[in-house]
Amino acid sequence: MKKQKIILTGDRPTGKLHIGHYVGSLRRRVELQDSGLYDRIFVFEADGQALTDNIDNPAKVRSNVMEVALDYLSVGLDPSRTTLFIQSQIPELCELSFYFLDLVSVARLQRNPTVKTEIGMRGFGEGIPAGFFTYPVSQAADIAAFRATHVPAGEDQEPMIEQCREIVRRFNYIYGNTLVEPEIMLPDNSACLRLPGTDGKAKMSKSLGNCIYLSDSADEVERKVKSMYTDPGHLRVSDPGKIEGNTVFTYLDAFCRPEHFERYLPDYPSLDELKAHYKRGGLGDMKVKKFLAAVMQETLEPIRKRRSEYEKDIPSVYEILRKGCEQAREVAAATMADVRRAMRIDYFEDESLIDEFQRSGKED
Amino acid sequence: MKKQKIILTGDRPTGKLHIGHYVGSLRRRVELQDSGLYDRIFVFEADGQALTDNIDNPAKVRSNVMEVALDYLSVGLDPSRTTLFIQSQIPELCELSFYFLDLVSVARLQRNPTVKTEIGMRGFGEGIPAGFFTYPVSQAADIAAFRATHVPAGEDQEPMIEQCREIVRRFNYIYGNTLVEPEIMLPDNSACLRLPGTDGKAKMSKSLGNCIYLSDSADEVERKVKSMYTDPGHLRVSDPGKIEGNTVFTYLDAFCRPEHFERYLPDYPSLDELKAHYKRGGLGDMKVKKFLAAVMQETLEPIRKRRSEYEKDIPSVYEILRKGCEQAREVAAATMADVRRAMRIDYFEDESLIDEFQRSGKED
Repeated sequence: MKKQKIILTGDRPTGKLHIGHYVGSLRRRVELQDSGLYDRIFVFEADGQALTDNIDNPAKVRSNVMEVALDYLSVGLDPSRTTLFIQSQIPELCELSFYFLDLVSVARLQRNPTVKTEIGMRGFGEGIPAGFFTYPVSQAADIAAFRATHVPAGEDQEPMIEQCREIVRRFNYIYGNTLVEPEIMLPDNSACLRLPGTDGKAKMSKSLGNCIYLSDSADEVERKVKSMYTDPGHLRVSDPGKIEGNTVFTYLDAFCRPEHFERYLPDYPSLDELKAHYKRGGLGDMKVKKFLAAVMQETLEPIRKRRSEYEKDIPSVYEILRKGCEQAREVAAATMADVRRAMRIDYFEDESLIDEFQRSGKED
Repeated sequence: MKKQKIILTGDRPTGKLHIGHYVGSLRRRVELQDSGLYDRIFVFEADGQALTDNIDNPAKVRSNVMEVALDYLSVGLDPSRTTLFIQSQIPELCELSFYFLDLVSVARLQRNPTVKTEIGMRGFGEGIPAGFFTYPVSQAADIAAFRATHVPAGEDQEPMIEQCREIVRRFNYIYGNTLVEPEIMLPDNSACLRLPGTDGKAKMSKSLGNCIYLSDSADEVERKVKSMYTDPGHLRVSDPGKIEGNTVFTYLDAFCRPEHFERYLPDYPSLDELKAHYKRGGLGDMKVKKFLAAVMQETLEPIRKRRSEYEKDIPSVYEILRKGCEQAREVAAATMADVRRAMRIDYFEDESLIDEFQRSGKED
């Protein structure tokens, strides 16, 4: 049998998704879905993982479950081709995690650079929650439960995938070939990895108010683009300007395509020419921002349109999630049944325990 | 409603049970069962916990599942009054563990003295498995899932129960009163806490070959008692002998009752008189051992008898376990449903997620 190509990826539902998510992952997921090259695609909301550092603020997670689902559907994830589900609705993932914890040492978890970085980023007042510390194991279980072969993710996630591969290898070594080692699918274009905030800060974050959300109205997008951070040294139109660290150009790198010039800025044949003029001096920020706004609107308009369709019928979104969870659970339950069979803890599925015991008695 | 009194306790099925288990816990469990004071009693085989340090030797765990069930039934645990079950058959326990991990810090787990001691005892070659490190959390989930109010255990387990109480308190504080804080039931008689091996070594262990098993035949028991460690300085009958560290007397402390003297050693009115004579000199080891052997046989005979009855019909033992697991799972699933409702991750159980989302949209 030909080996199936299965994709698994997802997000923590701790806030509505923004254009950073779009550039970093969502856009690519839709491309992968539309490529028709994959047998199955799972995109999930990791609410259980979100709770590992939000256990005392569960409302934050809950309130974003529907929001993120709408984001997924709006960007063009199609529930007939991509299974959308929510982690907490698949208890088999907890069961697999439980056994996976035995296959990793505490020291190995402590060495995980992704976790180290994330622990540094969060100010854990009462100490690092054990669930946060062990989340690479839970993530490995998510991947293995769906027998995912491909995990689209950024370079920063490589240690997580390697951790998963190690666990799967050790499981298969002890219990026989049962689970599949995944591989990471890195983005083609490293420039698109992480979009800065509209204020030029490295990261978009709700608390900084520097995000453009997929759910923002056309007016909001217009307003946010107009107020974006550019080159603070570029005071007069005639001044030469800098491209590096100029958020407007970073966004253009991520979003603009050749045809956008024909449509919105026919004086310039390409982004390179636009950049050259800006660097020379004589090109005003407002002109570039207007162009970016047009590009952003063209990109976001079909997303907004799809969103407003789904918003008219929220119960149907709920139903899509419910069905996705049902379908996902079926797959995870089948894997978990294989795992239990391999571990031989399926005592009551076949009765060989009886024979084994009676035979061992005779040998004593 | 009167608060129910619920007992939960169990063993790792890593070997057949011996008289150390009998004195340390099994005898008491039967007394608690027979007292009629408890609404529900759960005794379980913690195979999942056993795997935390036996993940590469699963056969060791599997092969003891039926053995320990027979031990339970032989000592008088009665499946119509005590629910016997196997941890791995209740996946809800993994699910509850998963969320409990978020309620404990890594530092708090590192401070757990029981885990510290046990880590010291085991030579973890490739490092401490994360599953072993976090097993207090899994144990807390076992207790909480059955809403156990009473956990019969030794003093060394106090930190584990305290850990469980902390987790339950934190859960209830965040999510509202859902789970029950258990209390430990320490043994009345501290002398009976831990029986040494027949060779005088502090611990009975299969590898040392110094155990008397509940499943040993009468001949084996006779032979093992005859070869027991006494006072190495007590060379001739006439020599004065020591009681402290003399395993035969430690066993008599644990097993002999006044009526045993009438029946097997009418020359002595009590254990104190027997000890006094031994200390003075003039009492031979063989006489004391013969007495101990008689006491042991009287204790073990009904256990052996019950065992041989069950051994005639192993499928019935399997069936008892299967039914016990079914009953236990029902209870754990009901608790887990309450937990999910309290955490509000029961998205598809009621449809309020739809209303909440629609309302939040209007507020934006």
